[in-house]
Amino acid sequence: MITALDHIAIAVPDLEKSIKRFMDDFGLTFEGREDVAAAKTSTAFFPLPPTSIELVHPLNGEGPIAGFLEKKGAGLHHLCFRSDDIEADVARLKAKGYQFLSEAPSLGAHNSKVIFIHPKSCDGVLIEINQPGDEH
Amino acid sequence: MITALDHIAIAVPDLEKSIKRFMDDFGLTFEGREDVAAAKTSTAFFPLPPTSIELVHPLNGEGPIAGFLEKKGAGLHHLCFRSDDIEADVARLKAKGYQFLSEAPSLGAHNSKVIFIHPKSCDGVLIEINQPGDEH
Repeated sequence: MITALDHIAIAVPDLEKSIKRFMDDFGLTFEGREDVAAAKTSTAFFPLPPTSIELVHPLNGEGPIAGFLEKKGAGLHHLCFRSDDIEADVARLKAKGYQFLSEAPSLGAHNSKVIFIHPKSCDGVLIEINQPGDEH
Repeated sequence: MITALDHIAIAVPDLEKSIKRFMDDFGLTFEGREDVAAAKTSTAFFPLPPTSIELVHPLNGEGPIAGFLEKKGAGLHHLCFRSDDIEADVARLKAKGYQFLSEAPSLGAHNSKVIFIHPKSCDGVLIEINQPGDEH
């Protein structure tokens, strides 16, 4: 079951500048950075409990965020719904015809299980579903 | 001060279909529809407290959402930060050089005061700031 909006992600070309923007200009609390090697993405989180703003930036200049920035430019990148049973949610959505970017969930930021629904399946929106890991 | 992520908005070409999607497929609670004549926008809200998913659709086929759908297609449209003092936040951001789409806040959905920051001022993201009205 979907229980919360876990986070909303923004693709940014200059991670340091954008971290400074959301801290200094918008007054948000900076939780920290985390590189997700499997996704070739550097992330930075600003909690607004129970949700967060996540900045995403290409790790080492490559990967899907590099492609997104090149094709579409900086901007809103995806939203993430939190699930209390990701396998059940994925199975239900697959049965309804939703296409996913991978066969099964993998390990994402914060040690959570994550999977992405193809934007074509959902009004052009890249939707992530995650289930927090034990350390969350 | 920014106190919460008030909502995240998705521009959709078929409001009824998308309402059904988020209710039936994602299991979200549908709060209701509201037409905002001043913004030429039909809205539908799905609360995930303290935030919401807002679907936005052109009211009577025209207005800014019609332009967005034509230019960029369906997808993530804006995020909205909730403020406890919108005039103070706007003044602070203006002093830092942020450009706004209007001079001062106007009345938006849920009887709140709302104003939008130009996407060029903020990593390509259309950011709304709102302050809930008395009826919220």
